[in-house]
Amino acid sequence: MRAELFLIPGPVGEQRLLGKTLVLIDVLRASTTICQALKSGARAIIPVLEPSEAAELRSKIGVDVTILGGEREGIKIDGFDLGNSPSEYTIEKVKGKTVIFTTSNGTRGYNRAAGSKLIVTAGLVNISSVVQKVAQAGQDLVILCAGQDGDFSIEDTLCGGMLLHKILTDWKMELELNDAAELGLLLYRSNSRVLKQTIARGEHGRYLAKIGFGSDVEAAVEIDSIPVLPISRDSRIVLDEN
Amino acid sequence: MRAELFLIPGPVGEQRLLGKTLVLIDVLRASTTICQALKSGARAIIPVLEPSEAAELRSKIGVDVTILGGEREGIKIDGFDLGNSPSEYTIEKVKGKTVIFTTSNGTRGYNRAAGSKLIVTAGLVNISSVVQKVAQAGQDLVILCAGQDGDFSIEDTLCGGMLLHKILTDWKMELELNDAAELGLLLYRSNSRVLKQTIARGEHGRYLAKIGFGSDVEAAVEIDSIPVLPISRDSRIVLDEN
Repeated sequence: MRAELFLIPGPVGEQRLLGKTLVLIDVLRASTTICQALKSGARAIIPVLEPSEAAELRSKIGVDVTILGGEREGIKIDGFDLGNSPSEYTIEKVKGKTVIFTTSNGTRGYNRAAGSKLIVTAGLVNISSVVQKVAQAGQDLVILCAGQDGDFSIEDTLCGGMLLHKILTDWKMELELNDAAELGLLLYRSNSRVLKQTIARGEHGRYLAKIGFGSDVEAAVEIDSIPVLPISRDSRIVLDEN
Repeated sequence: MRAELFLIPGPVGEQRLLGKTLVLIDVLRASTTICQALKSGARAIIPVLEPSEAAELRSKIGVDVTILGGEREGIKIDGFDLGNSPSEYTIEKVKGKTVIFTTSNGTRGYNRAAGSKLIVTAGLVNISSVVQKVAQAGQDLVILCAGQDGDFSIEDTLCGGMLLHKILTDWKMELELNDAAELGLLLYRSNSRVLKQTIARGEHGRYLAKIGFGSDVEAAVEIDSIPVLPISRDSRIVLDEN
């Protein structure tokens, strides 16, 4: 089985994803927030690129059954119901609702995923659930890190490396890796005992702490704390039913 | 002193480079070829983005004093004198000439470098010369890896990591690093004893061997084998005279 990791979504076209399993990672914070929203009973998450698109979609689906969530530069978007903190996505706020969601980096991978056979949203909070699904699917794997403003992000690369490490060790599968996948593995294995500290002192971890979201960083690095499996069906992210 | 590494040039704007030392790295093969051309007595290298631009510039400077060099998909460009193999840039071919040079990845960093105080071209073949220059300059440092088709390249990241390692250990300087610089350091330190093998079995190393340029890869990984210092002056790359 071939496993490719990409440090940023930029160079990956739809062609590369045809028939494969696609794992989308944005540890800080979109992946974590999506997991939390589904755990709290949201019916679905619809990732969109722009705030204007979110508002338009809301008026089509219906204001009473939808929630607008997301951020720009880390901060809740004007006129939106919720930002991008996992803790905001409580049962009271989202149960039974469809969350229309747009973030700076994390929601950008979804729009090129059309040809993938299986699309999974992964963070550290649900890593073991993702590993099991991906290993059982057995198809070639593409791991797309959201990165940060077009640049590599250490927390996403670490998460991708951990995913590969667990497939190799827990599932004893043989993987043919690209250079970035080797890099992700090396990064994870060198930091596995200090994962939380490495992410907290990384660039985006420090930025989030500075603007008051340090507790989001703490939540996002709790391994397997939200063991749900978000998969994409027709542009909607829902809980896997299998 | 702050030292930032970027795995790909994409997200780095001119503003970020103002007043800093900029190191441009494309180990396979532009950096190596530039070093070889200058060692063979080329008057200057002028990096340009497109082949058409190269031909136009040649007709302005004069056909008899210029050489057109470069590649697309690894292969010499139609109508050009030379490709991107260091071994082509012999004294017979380039002495006293100005080389107008365009490659898929390596020449792309130069056009955004205007505001930098010092611009150095680095490969493994001249790494110690670069380290000395950069350390003595003492300004904040940006290392821009050319990468491969908009994606990270393992050989450039290794070279950037080695450069940082040598500043830290040989020059005992304290550096404030960004996340990608930490990653480059980790990659270098984990591979320092198998540097040549790691690069040869990397994606671009394998590709070059496949299309018949395996000896270029071997030449590019010979540490300090071409100890020249290419610096940029007014869009021309020349030998440093200090």
